[in-house]
Amino acid sequence: MTDAPLATQAPPGGDGLLDDGRSAAEALAAHLAAEAGSFLRELPSVDLHTLRRVGAALHTFDALLDPGWSQDLREELSRLGGLLGQERAYARRLARLLGSLDSLTCTDAAVAAADAGGPVRTAGPVPQPRQAEGLLARHPGAPKARALLDRQLTLGRSRAHTTALQELGSARFHALADRMTLLVTDLPLRPGAAPAPAAALLACAGAEAEALVTAVDALPLERAAVAYSGDMLHDPGDDQRWQQVRVLVLRTQYALEVCAPLAGGRAAAPAAALAELARTLARHRDAAEAAEAAALAALTPRITPATAYVLGVVHADQRLEVEAARHTFSSTWPDLDRSGWLTDAWLKNR
Amino acid sequence: MTDAPLATQAPPGGDGLLDDGRSAAEALAAHLAAEAGSFLRELPSVDLHTLRRVGAALHTFDALLDPGWSQDLREELSRLGGLLGQERAYARRLARLLGSLDSLTCTDAAVAAADAGGPVRTAGPVPQPRQAEGLLARHPGAPKARALLDRQLTLGRSRAHTTALQELGSARFHALADRMTLLVTDLPLRPGAAPAPAAALLACAGAEAEALVTAVDALPLERAAVAYSGDMLHDPGDDQRWQQVRVLVLRTQYALEVCAPLAGGRAAAPAAALAELARTLARHRDAAEAAEAAALAALTPRITPATAYVLGVVHADQRLEVEAARHTFSSTWPDLDRSGWLTDAWLKNR
Repeated sequence: MTDAPLATQAPPGGDGLLDDGRSAAEALAAHLAAEAGSFLRELPSVDLHTLRRVGAALHTFDALLDPGWSQDLREELSRLGGLLGQERAYARRLARLLGSLDSLTCTDAAVAAADAGGPVRTAGPVPQPRQAEGLLARHPGAPKARALLDRQLTLGRSRAHTTALQELGSARFHALADRMTLLVTDLPLRPGAAPAPAAALLACAGAEAEALVTAVDALPLERAAVAYSGDMLHDPGDDQRWQQVRVLVLRTQYALEVCAPLAGGRAAAPAAALAELARTLARHRDAAEAAEAAALAALTPRITPATAYVLGVVHADQRLEVEAARHTFSSTWPDLDRSGWLTDAWLKNR
Repeated sequence: MTDAPLATQAPPGGDGLLDDGRSAAEALAAHLAAEAGSFLRELPSVDLHTLRRVGAALHTFDALLDPGWSQDLREELSRLGGLLGQERAYARRLARLLGSLDSLTCTDAAVAAADAGGPVRTAGPVPQPRQAEGLLARHPGAPKARALLDRQLTLGRSRAHTTALQELGSARFHALADRMTLLVTDLPLRPGAAPAPAAALLACAGAEAEALVTAVDALPLERAAVAYSGDMLHDPGDDQRWQQVRVLVLRTQYALEVCAPLAGGRAAAPAAALAELARTLARHRDAAEAAEAAALAALTPRITPATAYVLGVVHADQRLEVEAARHTFSSTWPDLDRSGWLTDAWLKNR
């Protein structure tokens, strides 16, 4: 985020577009060539962010691209991203759930030890000693629940790792790498798109931003803005709608990055705000997935009631994180929305 | 609450004390006589609020009262209140936990039916249809957990009822009733207290208010003011400190009621604000006790893991209510605190 609040910075209006003499197609080609080059240099490992950036650009700037080719490549990228993302998703869930359990079972002694190792406090009032002791401290089910989650999610991660390795050795992956090579040198354009001026990129980004605003308008933000609404447990609604908004936030953020050379720095503030919203929604996704993993673990046959009880508390704890993420989103979004950065003329067709 | 926010109403300062010519002892005697009369008229049933009001007055205005007599009676009232309060506490816990479970297992159909029976909406935007479906809808453990809580708390309530009936037939209770009769006609005063002017009551109430302010200052209000701090599960701290503040809020509220005839209506605003805080802290107590009851039910031998899982979620849900109550308190207290009503000279020794 910039130092000044977004809403106090007037959007730049339609003037001041930087024109480096390139057409929209040339600017987009340069962006995709850079991303594809980065993808190829990283091989055999794959940076999921690069995959996502290329896929998002193909979606956002579809109007400029050969439709069949673009659609095919997007589907391949999406499939690969899904496959390779599984391993990391299991690792995230594992870290989150074990972290939650360790905090829930934390005792005074552990906190005292952590405090002693912390930085020396030099200023401000002496903090009151915190009586930190998690609700499940010394609960007999906690070690078993921890071991169960650890075992199940580590197994899931191992399987995902095997699947990922197989994928990276497959003919299909090699074909995808070939297509990324093509991207570096020769971007397949939609007939007639070649002469479009660079400002056409802004129009495409504007359409993506508009889709984002529409999707957010349909979210129950007013309910989420009320702290402790109880939605996490009593009326969780549809997590997928929030996930979809996360996808749109990322697409808009990436679209602004593509337009950055044109916008002369003025895309930086909204891009940073979008990146923050994306982090909040990533927390939403992670917590929702972790809650599901806890619920799934509780279905394991022959676990003890104490283990199941602890998993119930962990599940609720993660759902609370989901509610907290929605609350954060609902209180940070209006600032970006009011700023006009996403709907102003500078992103519209000019 | 009054219409205008408390903080915008200047405290009345030290002037304008209404003097009806009665001494402090006479005014206090009139108040206690009224409460004791109400207690005696209600017999054989007992209004716990009356017990609490008498006990609070004996505590707050102790400086005016015969010390041994006052201390003895307070202990008897406190013991009786504890005994008779159990039945109602079980009923509250039962209603709260079954309500939570019913909401957690609610399905769309149930909400749709409830909505259809609601008041006809005539103004404002048409609300979006809520996708209300609790997190535990159709969970196999939910009916068993509900039956278990119902059974255990109904049993607890029945036992408390029996104990209460025995108590009301005991010689000890009859002795207490005799002492309340004495209160109606003859208040035992501390030697030398008889001539104290009525303003001495305000000084006593002021001391109670000061104790309240001191106790609240020691609460972690800054942490509680942050929504979704996670304290409910990860760092619940000491519920008892909040319970103690509830006792002090009630004592101060009742003390202001005693002083009301002196204060000429200006005790009404702070008394109403205190009543609201007391309701918030009653929610804190109820939720904390309900969470404990859910945890206790989960220790029942031979329950299924599904039942235990549901009880874990219910426990966490009630702890979230505890956190929400603290959050509400932390955002309503500053208004009363800033208003100066509790610390201003009008309540001090004059």
